Amino acid sequence: MSELKNDRFLRALLKEPVDMTPVWMMRQAGRYLPEYKATRAKAGDFMTLCKTPELATEVTMQPLDRFPLDAAILFSDILTIPDAMGLGLYFSEGEGPRFERPLRTKADIDKLFTPAMDEELGYVMAAVSMIRRELDGRVPLIGFTGSPWTLATYMVEGSSSKEYAKVKGMLYDQPKLMHQLLDKLADTIIEYLNAQIEHGAQAVMIFDTWGGVLTTRDYKEFSLRYMQKIIDGVKRDNDGRKVPVVMFTKGGCQWLEAQAETGADALGLDWTLDIGRARERVGDKVALQGNMDPCVLYASPERIKEEVASILKSYGKGSGHVFNLGHGIHQFVDPEHAKAFIEAVHELSPEYHK
Amino acid sequence: MSELKNDRFLRALLKEPVDMTPVWMMRQAGRYLPEYKATRAKAGDFMTLCKTPELATEVTMQPLDRFPLDAAILFSDILTIPDAMGLGLYFSEGEGPRFERPLRTKADIDKLFTPAMDEELGYVMAAVSMIRRELDGRVPLIGFTGSPWTLATYMVEGSSSKEYAKVKGMLYDQPKLMHQLLDKLADTIIEYLNAQIEHGAQAVMIFDTWGGVLTTRDYKEFSLRYMQKIIDGVKRDNDGRKVPVVMFTKGGCQWLEAQAETGADALGLDWTLDIGRARERVGDKVALQGNMDPCVLYASPERIKEEVASILKSYGKGSGHVFNLGHGIHQFVDPEHAKAFIEAVHELSPEYHK
Repeated sequence: MSELKNDRFLRALLKEPVDMTPVWMMRQAGRYLPEYKATRAKAGDFMTLCKTPELATEVTMQPLDRFPLDAAILFSDILTIPDAMGLGLYFSEGEGPRFERPLRTKADIDKLFTPAMDEELGYVMAAVSMIRRELDGRVPLIGFTGSPWTLATYMVEGSSSKEYAKVKGMLYDQPKLMHQLLDKLADTIIEYLNAQIEHGAQAVMIFDTWGGVLTTRDYKEFSLRYMQKIIDGVKRDNDGRKVPVVMFTKGGCQWLEAQAETGADALGLDWTLDIGRARERVGDKVALQGNMDPCVLYASPERIKEEVASILKSYGKGSGHVFNLGHGIHQFVDPEHAKAFIEAVHELSPEYHK
Repeated sequence: MSELKNDRFLRALLKEPVDMTPVWMMRQAGRYLPEYKATRAKAGDFMTLCKTPELATEVTMQPLDRFPLDAAILFSDILTIPDAMGLGLYFSEGEGPRFERPLRTKADIDKLFTPAMDEELGYVMAAVSMIRRELDGRVPLIGFTGSPWTLATYMVEGSSSKEYAKVKGMLYDQPKLMHQLLDKLADTIIEYLNAQIEHGAQAVMIFDTWGGVLTTRDYKEFSLRYMQKIIDGVKRDNDGRKVPVVMFTKGGCQWLEAQAETGADALGLDWTLDIGRARERVGDKVALQGNMDPCVLYASPERIKEEVASILKSYGKGSGHVFNLGHGIHQFVDPEHAKAFIEAVHELSPEYHK
């Protein structure tokens, strides 16, 4: 493998000194880019795009060719594991992901198929390997997974949900069954992240998209506990260099202190919390990744720059901050505004690292 | 007016001693009740139900006839004001509320019509009067409004939104214009709540459904500030008895301390925060209303009772707690489960008030 030319992202996650604050964007390979839409059209449907390593590599590289980003992230879906477990993932236009065979009973969960990393999920590992080759050391590659609770939510509901009636019905009425499902998912996710790392992922991120809909007690018991298990089980070494783990619970800012105790190297933050206040709360335990409201990218480049300045100032001096949006970049954002955002981070941040 | 026979709800909001913890449910007059669905079918469409005082009174009373609730809430919609301002509210099946003429420009906002409480909004006041007569002192009547920010969100987006692109685009790029809109809404809401109080509302609640999607800075500047203005402007007296104000920002539990400084008598809590911890944070400044996850009502009556016990224990001894769900009751809940919830609050709470 080629030597890493820009390791600002990995260094910031480990709170090592950097020359400027690194920046990347969740969903940076996405529908706001015309070149992404062209590749997507060529693929036909979304899962073909994910399952064809050449195409996944192509879209992973697209934002890096446009913007001076400090990290690449594997192009994939958070629902690859449930799909490989046999639930039949499909995407219906405008309705998001759906499963043909959602989990509703103990029998459904008992008979869940355990996918093999070099077979059912082999396409993910092939993409990781190919992207690493294509990157040729430009920036580090981030691997990722959904959290057990987030995967379980989709698997039980069968689709996106506004009310979580089915999955919370199971959580409240059949907690043991819910634990059985979450434990199985955590074990599979450990294998999944370790395989991504073996194939070249240099950092990994756990997306807990739906942890924020739980009570404080249930967040700890049904979401955080299984992320903790994953963090304990992931091999955090790639060619002798530490592989940092980033954990992100959207809507979970009230639980930062508990998150910081898991051994994660960094925590993702949505935009609702002031990042300076978050830094005070977690102290030296973890780095922070975030946290500009993605809607700021609808504003003018001047306003975007002001907001970047405000967040850099709030975080303050020293390493331990990876700049990002607080959620994925939206579909209708002008790519020139994304560029203004990324350039502003690099232009304004060096003074905080002197 | 008949004397109030059950004033537990009003007393708890003012932290006066009570015999047991009062309980009501957001959206207690709603689609989970077959008798509601029958009245709704008779009305034809949702806005006809809201705009016909006899029908609004009928559905307001339905849950009180089934369950020993401690308060009634005016049956209406949070978007009556924008509708009366001429935006053309309508409901499309399965898509929620929509406006025919959303606000997009300064010209749209400059020419906003100021509705009269005894004309365009006269149907709301007629319903308040009729419900008070029908209640005949059984329990107090709660009036309500959406918060300025929440109304503005719908008015600018034109519908429910997942990303808030248009309204936040305006907030970030044209903050003065956004303030102009919010100020106009706050003034109208003050008149609206005062008219409800004059017609018989004995407590009022401000629903800030979308405050939680803002940054900390913008929540204070664009949502809390205008709720503060409303609280300062509301006449808090009805026939010589204090009219308590409840403020509820869904997803806003990180800002409780700031909310408690507004002069609101009580704060609504969603279910993500432990209510005992919330009580520690606000001290004696305000009462608390909440906060069981509405999804608990999908579980068995035994499990529901356990959860009620857990929340009562967390709040602890003394007045200042109005039991409620952390959000409106869901459509597919069994009314018998709602009954089990309400009865559990009355059965288990007296020991906390000895």
